[in-house]
Amino acid sequence: MVTTDEQTTATTSLDFDLAAYLKAKKLQVETALDRAVPASREFPKIYEAMRYSLLAGGKRLRPILCLATCEMLGGTADLAIPTACALEMIHTMSLIHDDLPAMDNDDYRRGKLTNHKVYGEDIAILAGDGLLAYAFEYIAAQTAEVSPQRVLQVIAYLAKASGAMGIVGGQVADLESEGKPDISLDRLEFIHVHKTGALLAACVVCGAMLAGATEEDVQKLTQYAQNIGLAFQIIDDILDVTATREELGKTAGKDAAAQKATYPSLLGLEASQQKADRLIAEAIAQLKDYGTKAEPLRALAGFITSRKN
Amino acid sequence: MVTTDEQTTATTSLDFDLAAYLKAKKLQVETALDRAVPASREFPKIYEAMRYSLLAGGKRLRPILCLATCEMLGGTADLAIPTACALEMIHTMSLIHDDLPAMDNDDYRRGKLTNHKVYGEDIAILAGDGLLAYAFEYIAAQTAEVSPQRVLQVIAYLAKASGAMGIVGGQVADLESEGKPDISLDRLEFIHVHKTGALLAACVVCGAMLAGATEEDVQKLTQYAQNIGLAFQIIDDILDVTATREELGKTAGKDAAAQKATYPSLLGLEASQQKADRLIAEAIAQLKDYGTKAEPLRALAGFITSRKN
Repeated sequence: MVTTDEQTTATTSLDFDLAAYLKAKKLQVETALDRAVPASREFPKIYEAMRYSLLAGGKRLRPILCLATCEMLGGTADLAIPTACALEMIHTMSLIHDDLPAMDNDDYRRGKLTNHKVYGEDIAILAGDGLLAYAFEYIAAQTAEVSPQRVLQVIAYLAKASGAMGIVGGQVADLESEGKPDISLDRLEFIHVHKTGALLAACVVCGAMLAGATEEDVQKLTQYAQNIGLAFQIIDDILDVTATREELGKTAGKDAAAQKATYPSLLGLEASQQKADRLIAEAIAQLKDYGTKAEPLRALAGFITSRKN
Repeated sequence: MVTTDEQTTATTSLDFDLAAYLKAKKLQVETALDRAVPASREFPKIYEAMRYSLLAGGKRLRPILCLATCEMLGGTADLAIPTACALEMIHTMSLIHDDLPAMDNDDYRRGKLTNHKVYGEDIAILAGDGLLAYAFEYIAAQTAEVSPQRVLQVIAYLAKASGAMGIVGGQVADLESEGKPDISLDRLEFIHVHKTGALLAACVVCGAMLAGATEEDVQKLTQYAQNIGLAFQIIDDILDVTATREELGKTAGKDAAAQKATYPSLLGLEASQQKADRLIAEAIAQLKDYGTKAEPLRALAGFITSRKN
């Protein structure tokens, strides 16, 4: 038995089956989300609208990052699953609101009609509000076996990442950049660090906090998360140029149409891919002290640069 | 000195100066709100938009109810001020989103142009999102000298009141009732219990929780809050018929224009006023065990039926 354990511990990245890991975790997350936001007899329409977007598929990268980080640091998935669900609720809220006619005016998301195309703008706005409020209720009410002090830290961190200094602030900066293809690389990075990076960092940092991470863990993992967040966005920009709507499940070529600066437009495709690769390599370097337990986070970082949607 | 204390304890409702109390508490709340959401150099536009609506005046009834309840039960204002601010942030968020063209399409609020008329629909949606997220961050990060367990209860209660089973669910039911002047009184009450009542109840219940209320306190105060919440809405409906835009600081006569059922349209003006008065009397009856410490809550209940805007 000892030999078996040692063999497991000695697993290298070549042996780690990311596809199987992602499939299992995605199922775990989707089962939990379906339970977290059940259909309602008292409030049928708003729950239907919330569930429509929340359960519309997607990679579930954010909750998976949260679970993977908590487990890497010795926590169980149970500790992190309410926060993992909340992360997906907040991500879904931001997609529903971003897609509105007053914002990016998108008709498709995750291969389906956007929320407001199905339920109307009024319900879509309210479905987003409902998901955002519920995310915090769900963490506060459902997180068991973690000290209340730590749960409050998670709520504060996640709320900050969701608000005016995170997703919301990044989205405002993004809206301001439309029609300005000549903004600087610094400004572009500012947009993405907030619009996408803040919530991705929260996935990892909140997963770490729930497992009882040290300050040093949180520092390394924040760096890991910020790097993969930025790389994720660079790849998003590249895919907007190179992929089709069918591959993306959402409208392609939108950045060029909106005259938006992107990594490819500022750096070119090749240099953009190199920058993403470098960020990922640096992210993986932050994990060197965690041994084989870090396999999921290493593989997830690699997955970001190789994804096709 | 003992005599002075006894005299204070013997203060009757006739001696309680509500106007002075409201003025002092409003100042306390507005100072706290101004500090809670400062202007930002990094994110200037979104903070300006959030501050525009948050600091636009208003009666500050919700935060004052929270502070008054906490103090009635022996807590200090310091314990409750972060939650009191959060309540006003959430209330403001719901006003900003309700006023959007896709919802009630209002041009004026609190006597000023609505958020989207000044900043555009996109920023108004995001300002609401930012305020909602920040409300929970602010409670989680700023509440001192209350056990973390109790702070989590406050967050869970308030988030529920803000979401699909509270404000959001009530607003959906309200939108569904437009153009249906023949809905039942039960349905009308359902709308208001959720759209307005849930957050008003949260003000009182969260203030009580922060002060360390017993289960019995919470039960009585929930009844108090639900009654004044419903009475508040009935008076709102009455004022929509009888007051002018100048008095209200927002568009008057909107309910009739939207063919919405209201208490006056279903019961008549006189019976509506009587129902509001009865609800207030029952609310005040819930406070009988709290003696003179309940003067602010008693006076606030009375204020609701006598207000002119």
